[in-house]
Amino acid sequence: MSSEIYDFSANQTNPNNFPFSVWAKMVRETLSDRPDDLLKRSSCGGVKELRNAIANHLLSFRGMVVDPNQIVVGAGTEYLYNLLIKLLGYDKIYCVENPGYKKIVQVYHSNRVKCCFAEMDENGVNLNSLESANADILHISPTHHFPTGITMPVKRRYELLAWANEKSGRYIIEDEYDSEFRLNGKPIPTMQSIDGTEKVIYMNTFSKSLASTIRISYMVLPAHLANEFYEKLSFYSCTVSTFDQYALAAFISQGYLEKHINRMRLYYVKKRQLVLDKIAHIFNPDECSVIENDSGLHFLLKLNTNILDTVLEKRLLAKNIHLQSLSSFYYKNHSIFGYDAPNTHLFLLNYSNINIDKLDEALKIIQKEISMTDI
Amino acid sequence: MSSEIYDFSANQTNPNNFPFSVWAKMVRETLSDRPDDLLKRSSCGGVKELRNAIANHLLSFRGMVVDPNQIVVGAGTEYLYNLLIKLLGYDKIYCVENPGYKKIVQVYHSNRVKCCFAEMDENGVNLNSLESANADILHISPTHHFPTGITMPVKRRYELLAWANEKSGRYIIEDEYDSEFRLNGKPIPTMQSIDGTEKVIYMNTFSKSLASTIRISYMVLPAHLANEFYEKLSFYSCTVSTFDQYALAAFISQGYLEKHINRMRLYYVKKRQLVLDKIAHIFNPDECSVIENDSGLHFLLKLNTNILDTVLEKRLLAKNIHLQSLSSFYYKNHSIFGYDAPNTHLFLLNYSNINIDKLDEALKIIQKEISMTDI
Repeated sequence: MSSEIYDFSANQTNPNNFPFSVWAKMVRETLSDRPDDLLKRSSCGGVKELRNAIANHLLSFRGMVVDPNQIVVGAGTEYLYNLLIKLLGYDKIYCVENPGYKKIVQVYHSNRVKCCFAEMDENGVNLNSLESANADILHISPTHHFPTGITMPVKRRYELLAWANEKSGRYIIEDEYDSEFRLNGKPIPTMQSIDGTEKVIYMNTFSKSLASTIRISYMVLPAHLANEFYEKLSFYSCTVSTFDQYALAAFISQGYLEKHINRMRLYYVKKRQLVLDKIAHIFNPDECSVIENDSGLHFLLKLNTNILDTVLEKRLLAKNIHLQSLSSFYYKNHSIFGYDAPNTHLFLLNYSNINIDKLDEALKIIQKEISMTDI
Repeated sequence: MSSEIYDFSANQTNPNNFPFSVWAKMVRETLSDRPDDLLKRSSCGGVKELRNAIANHLLSFRGMVVDPNQIVVGAGTEYLYNLLIKLLGYDKIYCVENPGYKKIVQVYHSNRVKCCFAEMDENGVNLNSLESANADILHISPTHHFPTGITMPVKRRYELLAWANEKSGRYIIEDEYDSEFRLNGKPIPTMQSIDGTEKVIYMNTFSKSLASTIRISYMVLPAHLANEFYEKLSFYSCTVSTFDQYALAAFISQGYLEKHINRMRLYYVKKRQLVLDKIAHIFNPDECSVIENDSGLHFLLKLNTNILDTVLEKRLLAKNIHLQSLSSFYYKNHSIFGYDAPNTHLFLLNYSNINIDKLDEALKIIQKEISMTDI
């Protein structure tokens, strides 16, 4: 392997895939057509045009009926998590999925709020585990759980909504970070759209559908929380530049986001298949199997090895390969898929930005390493 | 007066003053020249190019010697206040100026941290008041206090640095929101530049020098706090889009910011004089006097009236004039300049974006109102 790290977790947007010329056109038109609007302070939730565009996008892509006034735009999902804590309360107990996306816990801890953990089963957050966690706010990614890739079935979604309705003050944060790239499988409604009692806060980002470095995310608040937000927190200016907000609004409303997502879906379908083919070509079925769900930009590799996950991670890193084990996303040791963490021998493969040309070489190194005896 | 509000506090950038064509050029060049960089995750403190550009700008404009690694870029000053609380501690007591910029207190309260108040005298924050406030962190705007306009003399700056050094854990947040527009008066060093013991956190924004809607601010952390920031909080992505960061970096490093500031200084010098001339022309000296310091984009009007400040504010608003009294910026009732709040009869005039053509009319309405008897 070359001296550069081959990163199976890298998820940044490939420059060849970003619609630079269209984006440049949007920016140019925005700058020339609406100088006055650009210098006017936007509402704390974001400019009207962008919120309208997002509401229309949610309707056509996710069948969600959302009043633009429920939408709050912010500079990244992490920023919105912080805002939500201010809205929901520092005294609440926030429950996250275990294993899960570590940054969420870091955000909660950095705000000095109490955080608890709910275990996952094959359908997502386990109810018994949730019940015993004594949580007020449940923070989940039901469409495509990170890192397991689980898509939560409708039944579990209703069960969680029932949990939220058991006690006042309970809410569910539904974090959809890459729902646009659910590439097959039947469509499952968002929890927001089956929530009849204003218990779900929906979150999404343009990090996956456009680029993470553009720092634009949004949340959809239930009506009563949206009102509370404007009452209590409207002194906070929207953190996204109006320049970017108007450019993105034009990008969405002129149909470019839809085109871009469709193009990227095709690209990812092909790339995913290429990666799967290469894995099938290099590994024997008893060496490695793929555990994939229907959605998103990553899946899991189950490697047949007796080497400890942490040891294998280190050995591969010494060969310039960054491959993260599922067990590294556990907050404590628990089981999932019947394997015992921390040695599930499951590894995360995010294929969205990996270099196909060097994939063979990287896979062969992995193949060689897993056959070594553990010492 | 027309049905539109004549706002003496409005501070948004006039579209005629924003350098749209140069900005468009910077964005165009950034998009075509560095697609790869734009999609690479920036450091949590901001991209290197922008931090270098800011460091050079601080050196040439404020004589500040700053390592770019000490700079943290964020989507607005309010966002950086939030980040600072995470860095300095939720258990600390934060002291703000009274009167002061209300949003600061709102930010602290929304983070559930303890906030105390230090009174102002003619040289800025009063030491006795500060001592009795029992604060850990002092948050001030010494170059141009809002709303009084006071520029803190060097002696008081050293006294405050002495206070910060009396006890470990004490820091001073030096908030310079419009230092570029100190239009006359001898230059006064920033507290950051006379701080030899890493006690000062310097903050500034491009809100005044460019546009508030572009949402880019930055802070300069003392070296040990910068290290702590990278250790503890580097999981927080920089909240400013890399697209905007690179465009601004080019704008600064190619000399356009300096040109723009110089052009705006000339514009504000002329506008300030025009406003002062109109005030002198319309009011008799016994009706109204101007209390101005050397700096910034606002000054105070002292109106000779026996009407309560709050009553006058309301009466003027009924005539579509928004004129804020100094007393409205007090957290509690205190005295400043020898007048007793809440009836100092001092009013804030931010001239940066007022409509000169309708100023005569607005001033005449004020003149008429202050001569009415209080009922």
